[in-house]
Order: sequence, then C-alpha cells, then structure tokens
Amino acid sequence: MKLAPLFDRVVLKPLVAEETTKSGIVLPGQAKEKPQQAEVIAVGPGGLVDGKEVTMQVKVGDKVIFSKYSGTEVEGENENDKLVIVKQNDILAVIE
Amino acid sequence: MKLAPLFDRVVLKPLVAEETTKSGIVLPGQAKEKPQQAEVIAVGPGGLVDGKEVTMQVKVGDKVIFSKYSGTEVEGENENDKLVIVKQNDILAVIE
Amino acid sequence: MKLAPLFDRVVLKPLVAEETTKSGIVLPGQAKEKPQQAEVIAVGPGGLVDGKEVTMQVKVGDKVIFSKYSGTEVEGENENDKLVIVKQNDILAVIE
Amino acid sequence: MKLAPLFDRVVLKPLVAEETTKSGIVLPGQAKEKPQQAEVIAVGPGGLVDGKEVTMQVKVGDKVIFSKYSGTEVEGENENDKLVIVKQNDILAVIE
Amino acid sequence: MKLAPLFDRVVLKPLVAEETTKSGIVLPGQAKEKPQQAEVIAVGPGGLVDGKEVTMQVKVGDKVIFSKYSGTEVEGENENDKLVIVKQNDILAVIE
Amino acid sequence: MKLAPLFDRVVLKPLVAEETTKSGIVLPGQAKEKPQQAEVIAVGPGGLVDGKEVTMQVKVGDKVIFSKYSGTEVEGENENDKLVIVKQNDILAVIE
Amino acid sequence: MKLAPLFDRVVLKPLVAEETTKSGIVLPGQAKEKPQQAEVIAVGPGGLVDGKEVTMQVKVGDKVIFSKYSGTEVEGENENDKLVIVKQNDILAVIE
Repeated sequence: MKLAPLFDRVVLKPLVAEETTKSGIVLPGQAKEKPQQAEVIAVGPGGLVDGKEVTMQVKVGDKVIFSKYSGTEVEGENENDKLVIVKQNDILAVIE
Repeated sequence: MKLAPLFDRVVLKPLVAEETTKSGIVLPGQAKEKPQQAEVIAVGPGGLVDGKEVTMQVKVGDKVIFSKYSGTEVEGENENDKLVIVKQNDILAVIE
Repeated sequence: MKLAPLFDRVVLKPLVAEETTKSGIVLPGQAKEKPQQAEVIAVGPGGLVDGKEVTMQVKVGDKVIFSKYSGTEVEGENENDKLVIVKQNDILAVIE
Repeated sequence: MKLAPLFDRVVLKPLVAEETTKSGIVLPGQAKEKPQQAEVIAVGPGGLVDGKEVTMQVKVGDKVIFSKYSGTEVEGENENDKLVIVKQNDILAVIE
Repeated sequence: MKLAPLFDRVVLKPLVAEETTKSGIVLPGQAKEKPQQAEVIAVGPGGLVDGKEVTMQVKVGDKVIFSKYSGTEVEGENENDKLVIVKQNDILAVIE
Repeated sequence: MKLAPLFDRVVLKPLVAEETTKSGIVLPGQAKEKPQQAEVIAVGPGGLVDGKEVTMQVKVGDKVIFSKYSGTEVEGENENDKLVIVKQNDILAVIE
Repeated sequence: MKLAPLFDRVVLKPLVAEETTKSGIVLPGQAKEKPQQAEVIAVGPGGLVDGKEVTMQVKVGDKVIFSKYSGTEVEGENENDKLVIVKQNDILAVIE
C-alpha cells in the first residue's frame, strides 16, 4: 500500500547494512543491531502541527538516521517491506 | 447510532484484512494482530482545539493508518460495528 | 441541586441503556458496562480557559459520548441522580 | 485569621451536610464521605496567572462544588474552622 | 547572610506558633506540625520568569501561608534562623 | 579549562565553608553537608532560551545560593576545582 | 558517513583524554569515566524548532562540554569513530 503521511510525519524504509565476510561473500546485515539508517519514502505536508509551524527538511530519497525507538511500524506495498512512520523531529540527520 | 465528533476528533471503522488460504478460501482476518487500518466514518469540525488552530486533513471515506493504542472504542449503528474515535493527530497516514 | 459549571465544564447525566429480553420485559441496563452515553444537563460559559479561548460546541439536551474515566461524579437534584461534571474536551462526539 | 488569596486562588469553607434521622434528630454529616460542597470565603484578584489571563468567576458567598483532592487545608479564624485554598480551576460548578 | 532572591522567588521566615500551657507557661511551638505560616523577608524583582510576565504581589513584612512541601531551606543571618526560598506561586494567601 | 556557557547557563564554583574549632584551628568544611553556596565563575549570554527571552541577573564574582541537586559537575582549570554548570533559574538568590 | 543534522542538532565527537603515567608513557584515557568533552563535527541549521526560534551558538571545530546522558550514539566515517548527535541545548559550555 502507498502511504501519504499527515502533518510532519515521514515514512521511512529502514536500510539493511550489507557486509562482506573475509571469503568475499556478502551477507545481509539483518541479524545486526544497527537499524537506525533509513531511506525516506514519503513526506507529510508540514504546516501547522499541534499549533506550531513546521517546515519539512527531508525529501523522498534522502538517506537519514533516526531514533531507533521512535515511530510506528507498518507494512509497505510488499508484505516483506517493513516501513516506519516517524515524526520529522525523530530524524536526527541526513546522511550526505 | 450516528456520531458527530467534536473538535479534531475522527470516527474510524477499523478494517478487517481478508486473506486467502492456499485452498482459495477467503478467511476474514479477525484473529490477526493488524487492526491499524481503518476507514474514516465521520470528521470533526477542527478549528481551535486546546487553543491551537487545527485544520482537518482527512475526509469521510479515506482509508487511513492509525496508532493502535490510541482512541476510544464505541459501538456503531449496528451492535457489531466497533468504531474508534481518535484525535486526527493519531492518524499517521492516508492510504492511497 | 442545580449546577452552573465554570469555564468549559459540562454537567452530564449518564444514560442507562434499556434492553428488551426475549420475553419482552424491559430491563434497565444498570448492570452493563456501557456508561459512556449521556445527556447534557448544563454547559459552562467557555471563554478563556487556562489562557486558551474555548467555544462551547454542545448544548443542553444533546446526547453525547464521553470518556468513561473522565470527570467527577456529583449528586443531582434527586439523591438518585448521578451526574458527572466533565471538561468539554472529554466529550468525544454528539449522537445525532 | 483572615486570608487574602493570591492570583486565582479561592478560600473555601467545606459545607457539612446536615441530616435528619427518622427520629427527627439532626445529625451533622461529619462522618459522611461528601465534602465536595463548599462556600466561597475569599477570592483572589485573578489577572496574569502563570502568564495566562484569568478572570474570577466566583464571588464570596457562592456555594460551589470542588474537586475533593485539590487544594491545601488551612485553619480559619476559629481553630475549628477547616478551610481549603484551591485554584479557581479546581471549582467545578456553582450551586444555584 | 542577606539574600536577594532572583526572578519571582521570595525568602520566607517560617513562623513558630507560640502556645500557652494551662499553667500559663509559653512554649514555642517547634514540635508542632504547623509550619505553613511565614513572614516575608525578601522579594525578587519579578518580571519575565520562564518567558512569562510576573508581578510580585507580596512585600517584605507580609504574613503569608505557603505550601509546606515547596521551596528550599537555607540558613539566615543567624545560624538558628531557618529560612525558606519559594516561588511566589507557592504562596497561597496573605494573612490580614 | 576555561568555560563559556551557552544560553542561560552559569558556571559556579561551590564554596567550602571554613570553620574554627574551639582550639582555634581552621578546618575546611568539606565533610559538611552544606554545598549550596557558590561563586559565579562564568555567565552565558542569555537571549532566546527554548523560545523564551531570558536576561541574565547574576554576574561573575557574585556569591549565590543554588539548588543542591541541580546542574552538572565539571572540572575546572585545576584538577581539584570542582565546578558546577547550572541554568540561571537554578540559582535561588544572590548573597549580599 | 557524513552527517547533516536537522534542526538544532549537533554532531559531536567525544574526546578521549590523554594521560601521562609517572614513567612518561602516554595512555589514552579510554578507561576513565570522563566522556563529557567533545569536538563539534557538524551543526544543524537552527531556525524554527518545535515552534521556537533557535540560533546556533556553536560552530564546527568548537571544543564543548555536553551532558553525558544526552544524545544518540552513531557511527562516523570510520567504524571506530563513535559520534554523538545531541540537541544544541544539551551542550553546556564551549571550552576556550
């Protein structure tokens, strides 16, 4: 399903860090405790949020770091896609 | 009963996800832990809510995702209708 | 006693749902866990409440749904009348 | 002692409900759990309270209902007078 | 030591209630649980406190009642003077 | 190290009260539970702090009383200097 | 990875205090409990943060002291770089 977040919410797709073993085999990093990186999938309109003006500072495609314990997990268009909806303020930084 | 929510409240009807078993039988998803999708049944007028200007961004008929633990359960026009009244801010995204 | 609520408070009289048994006897619903419906008995003046402008959106006679755990129980004009004083914001919706 | 409350505070004298036994003897209601009614003894000036404009809506002599667990108990002019100082917002309604 | 409180703080000297025993001996009330009365010793300048305008409503010499559990105990000019520094908002009423 | 505090923060050097024993020997008061007095070592610029205008009311050299449990301990230019960084609002009063 | 913090966030690189043993050998201070000093690596744009205007007062290269328990740890460009993303308000002082 396609999501249009409200207010200052942002839909994120957490990134799975890939890793190369010494033998050269690439292992997906699923078992590692590092889910803080994500790609921005959809961005809310911002504007007046809880009575405060918010401008959106991230855009679709940005790679970001977000607080691991924030947000709500939802399912993406494919059942295997695990998305997270966070408030923009839970995004700490854009990765350049 | 028909409900006209106050302020920035929204009446939601949680959606029951249907599922097809391998044998082709459609099973209603009631036993599954996925009650976060809902249809918008009624929308409050917005305006000054707790001293803050709120504009309503969802409309009747929208499919939305909302925070599972928010809101108050009420009974709809039919006894079997379980509705939920949430504040608009508990709605995370519209499903397009 | 007659009550004139202050600020954005509203005096409610919880409704007792009546029920008809199969034998046709009407049983008052007192033993059931459904005290969320109420009739509006008195409405405060609104205005500046805790520094925030509040306009009253319910009126005497409205049937409403309110949060079961909000408000303060008081006694009405008859000793058997159990009234509840809530803030308007604890009223979720008007029943039309 | 005579008290001039600051800000939006109000000095209340809780009312003791009298009761008549079947034999006609009037018993003061001290042992009953119903201390929510009170008479207004003194009213603060209102104005800017914690940065918010407050207008006083009760006056000396009003009979009111207040939240039982709010306020601070103080002693009145007679040692036996138990007064309560509450913020006006802890007063739920005026009894008419 | 002499204290000039900042912002909306007030230096109080709790009053010790004197008591006369039946034999006429005056006993200082130190062992009694009634430390809520105090004399105002010094008053802060008020003004913008935490972004909110505060005007000081008590003055040096006022007898006041304050919330027993508020404030910070400090030592006065004599080691035996126990003073209390409270925010003005912790003062409930002036005793007239 | 020399510290320039941000916003409304103030660097304090807690004062050690000296004491004279009966034999006339001066004992530094380190073992006593009275660390609430301090000298102001550095003062932040004030201005907009968390969206609220703050003007600094203490200056370097002031003797002050501060809340014992507030602030963060840091090391001064000498390893033995224990400094405390507090927000100005944690300073209760200037000692004159 | 290179980080561009949002809003009033600041990326810090905690400093490891070096120490010289009596024999003159320099030991990195990793085992010591003093991680409060840091160098500023990147600074957010400031502006309207949660509805409040914030101006950034630190710049890249500043040595600062920050609250040890604030912020979120992230990995820098080298795997061994441990960075911390804090809100500017968690920075107590600049070290001059």
